[in-house]
Amino acid sequence: MRTLVVASKNARKAREIRAVLEPLRDWEIRSLPPDAPDMEETGTTFLENAIQKTTFYGSRYRGWMVADDSGLEVEALGGRPGIFSARYAPTDAERNRRLLAELADVPDAARGARFVCALALSLDGRLQWTVEERVAGRVARTPAGTHGFGYDPVFWLPELGRTMAELDPSAKNRISHRGRALARLLGHIGSLG
Amino acid sequence: MRTLVVASKNARKAREIRAVLEPLRDWEIRSLPPDAPDMEETGTTFLENAIQKTTFYGSRYRGWMVADDSGLEVEALGGRPGIFSARYAPTDAERNRRLLAELADVPDAARGARFVCALALSLDGRLQWTVEERVAGRVARTPAGTHGFGYDPVFWLPELGRTMAELDPSAKNRISHRGRALARLLGHIGSLG
Repeated sequence: MRTLVVASKNARKAREIRAVLEPLRDWEIRSLPPDAPDMEETGTTFLENAIQKTTFYGSRYRGWMVADDSGLEVEALGGRPGIFSARYAPTDAERNRRLLAELADVPDAARGARFVCALALSLDGRLQWTVEERVAGRVARTPAGTHGFGYDPVFWLPELGRTMAELDPSAKNRISHRGRALARLLGHIGSLG
Repeated sequence: MRTLVVASKNARKAREIRAVLEPLRDWEIRSLPPDAPDMEETGTTFLENAIQKTTFYGSRYRGWMVADDSGLEVEALGGRPGIFSARYAPTDAERNRRLLAELADVPDAARGARFVCALALSLDGRLQWTVEERVAGRVARTPAGTHGFGYDPVFWLPELGRTMAELDPSAKNRISHRGRALARLLGHIGSLG
């Protein structure tokens, strides 16, 4: 039995990741201890931040660890909020409000956006593997849906005709940036032998 | 036309990488300038070292850059020489001699080994993407073949019944750790749009 620690202090993100990983046979999935220190993110890309988290927490807690860095890149904002997605405003509701306000005058055709998720896997603080996945969509005009977290209520998926927050967890994980990245992680872990 | 710099001071490795990348349309493939500084590798995994190279050189030379860290992991040596493959002895010939000497008493069935190649891609020194690929084989009893470089003459491929150095460049690139990693890089670059 091996242990994999999910190195996220965002409780909803950690829960989403754990839900995908917990069916893994022969692995016990854990969270960071409640007293884990905060870490300042200084990377310039999602990938750099995910690596920074996994090596920062990995040097404190032994064993296998996975870290996520993810966010929303909006075309009309030149890629913002990007790696600053979580720092764009204090709460999810305020972040979404600010985003919709910034895009108030932007027509539908120019509201393209993508969710990006980078994962980094370490063993005893030594980087072992990384992945980055995306999902393309559009910033909605108004929030909709109660599932998920973050920008999910304002991220509209053209093929499905609904927002990410209108998908139940298993539907979200099949198509989302994080779900795809976690699927790649499962494949990689399965190949570790 | 975009430029991609191959951040390797190993001339034979840089040539091997360039040969795979040069068919890329709309990209000009370049080497580091001859006066590029040396870099001390302090990572603990191939991936960490590849990232270190691409961010070290990427902070000095702008644009797209790819760095490789690769080596040989020998089962009977607990994974050595691993990330120290290039530092195992001063020249390729001495490295191969030392390896064969260390394994002199090891029977064929216990001579399993794998080549590992990690690549990291950066833009203006900011990490964009990584990959790691492996190829499994066995340490031969004597060197054979004149192609390739490094441990190629002593890395025996069971399915092919010959060493990596007995394969011509295009055959090597189809099956090798670096060839596979570069194929993934080509796929990634093709998706950049």
